[in-house]
Amino acid sequence: MSAPEGGPTTPDEQAPRKRRGPRPSTTTSWTVAHEVGVSQSTVSRALRKDPRVRPETRRRIEEAAERLGYRPLNGDDAATSHRTIGVVVADLTNPFFPSLLTPIHDELRLMGYRVVLFAERTDIPTGQEALNRLLDRSIDGVLVTTATLGSRFPDAVRERDLPIVLLNRYVDGMDVDRVVADNHEGGRLAGRHLVELGHERIGVIRGPSNTSTSRDRLAGLVEVLGEAGIELDESLMRKGPYSHQNGYQHARELLRLKEPPTALFCANDVIGFGAVDAARSLGVDVPSQVSIIGFDDVPMAAWEVFQLTTVRQPLGDMARAAARMLAERIEFDGEIGPGREQVFATSLVKRSTTDRAAATPPAGA
Amino acid sequence: MSAPEGGPTTPDEQAPRKRRGPRPSTTTSWTVAHEVGVSQSTVSRALRKDPRVRPETRRRIEEAAERLGYRPLNGDDAATSHRTIGVVVADLTNPFFPSLLTPIHDELRLMGYRVVLFAERTDIPTGQEALNRLLDRSIDGVLVTTATLGSRFPDAVRERDLPIVLLNRYVDGMDVDRVVADNHEGGRLAGRHLVELGHERIGVIRGPSNTSTSRDRLAGLVEVLGEAGIELDESLMRKGPYSHQNGYQHARELLRLKEPPTALFCANDVIGFGAVDAARSLGVDVPSQVSIIGFDDVPMAAWEVFQLTTVRQPLGDMARAAARMLAERIEFDGEIGPGREQVFATSLVKRSTTDRAAATPPAGA
Repeated sequence: MSAPEGGPTTPDEQAPRKRRGPRPSTTTSWTVAHEVGVSQSTVSRALRKDPRVRPETRRRIEEAAERLGYRPLNGDDAATSHRTIGVVVADLTNPFFPSLLTPIHDELRLMGYRVVLFAERTDIPTGQEALNRLLDRSIDGVLVTTATLGSRFPDAVRERDLPIVLLNRYVDGMDVDRVVADNHEGGRLAGRHLVELGHERIGVIRGPSNTSTSRDRLAGLVEVLGEAGIELDESLMRKGPYSHQNGYQHARELLRLKEPPTALFCANDVIGFGAVDAARSLGVDVPSQVSIIGFDDVPMAAWEVFQLTTVRQPLGDMARAAARMLAERIEFDGEIGPGREQVFATSLVKRSTTDRAAATPPAGA
Repeated sequence: MSAPEGGPTTPDEQAPRKRRGPRPSTTTSWTVAHEVGVSQSTVSRALRKDPRVRPETRRRIEEAAERLGYRPLNGDDAATSHRTIGVVVADLTNPFFPSLLTPIHDELRLMGYRVVLFAERTDIPTGQEALNRLLDRSIDGVLVTTATLGSRFPDAVRERDLPIVLLNRYVDGMDVDRVVADNHEGGRLAGRHLVELGHERIGVIRGPSNTSTSRDRLAGLVEVLGEAGIELDESLMRKGPYSHQNGYQHARELLRLKEPPTALFCANDVIGFGAVDAARSLGVDVPSQVSIIGFDDVPMAAWEVFQLTTVRQPLGDMARAAARMLAERIEFDGEIGPGREQVFATSLVKRSTTDRAAATPPAGA
């Protein structure tokens, strides 16, 4: 099934990589996928005898491939196997990114793409130069996991007529493919949970205000609290990056107030871990003295030392969906039309960091 | 400072990328670096007016560049800016990898390289096909962070005459560049610390036995315990992957023995986090009932909920050194000679998970 080792360069490899618009009508793995009613990646897996494809499905795919005259790893697929996708992530140290990167990487690999990683760092100048490097001729599509609301980056990618998919965050008014969770509904779920536990004095540690995720989560929270007649106290709101440090410093401030909040809404899990750490450093018991809720449900949230109550977004499913959407955009750009959106539902994961509102304020230092 | 936007293809870009052996004698950023006595990346930073370079250093570099007739981003550097390095990592979800990946990425970027990420997964078949894809003509060098002792992978890279640097782990008898910590000495540091605290009944949770890191750390531990007249009890030794799960499951087993160990030596921090979690799940107090020590000093080890005593390896420095070593190998392969080795010292970081051996065994379930 593998390409010949060190084999000669094929004409396909020499062909220009940038190719937009409708493609000549030939049988591709997509044709087979549509015929059988499965995804293109399932076709690829089946034809390489990946054990995760059920035997019955594999048989149907093999029959359709033969009927349609599709030969894997010749022609079309050989070209695909040299395509390259740029994946843009922000801070690699957030445990959120491995949860996205690993499935993106695996899904794109199975479809025969190569993955180039671009880490945007706020502490390192990235501007026109980085953009030029990213968008050189060897990149066939871009998957952006970190767009900010005012980002010029996706626009620049579109201007160059490169396929793009935004994952997790979106950009206002921008007509590009995107895969997101229902962050507004997630904010509502978290808020309703806190209201049901009797919390009224709720502190908020937001993420960056230029991200759609932080904004939408907060909007959902505010809405559901409003329905319960609770207004957020501005003096209990803090914001900063999606980092442990942001959660730690701000939770320490909030918990040391004369009248501290009885619950902390944290814009993501990493901020939540910082808040749990802050409570521990002050000797404030979680959840009897303060409830803490996060957002994302990264794997660490389930660790015994955290047992963090959080709002789950299905990160793996979202990442795989974004990878497939981008592959479709690269293969069929001319036929797909304007930006599509795929929204994943969120759900509350109740663990050990939330409980009924304390009758007395925390005995913080 | 940036290349012309969407500019025409230069001859450099069309030239074959694979180019080994001595290079024609022209002035490069390396020439300037050697003249001034700084690293090549400092030269690149200085000439792009990166604020992290001190004004005095920048002035000296600018003068040398002018004297030697070096013009950045022309000729040599334009070619460099299109070079690509493949970085191979194992499980992206280990918090160890961001600590390596981020500095590798930053350092290579500053030197004008593009980074392609290859995640090796044990649960996904990667064989000849993945290797062929990695080693196609567009890769100019490979940085491997995850070699196993029996790995055929570095050999295959060498056979194709591609520059390679092994980071963190090495492969026996293989003459390639490598950057490692002194893991044997690190094992000794951990062992001496436990001996000094009076521990004699010591449990061990190893990493994979086919990694140089796990083997060397254990050898150091065994050696220093032997000097103190303590022999490890085989029935208290467990092994598995470098994962939270490995630490959690095996620590639970060990802590529930009739005669549990008074200390656990964990082959890395993630295993250590799992062990701390296991103790917590059983109601065994750390450190009064069991001491736990890790290895690596990833950022999470300093979090309040863990405060993990560990052996620090300078991951950032090691990553940057490996990136520079690979860049040198790509630029000057013919002049450098056989494999070089750079070994970084380890140090004990005493936090809250180790204490004097308990007089009574843990009261585990």
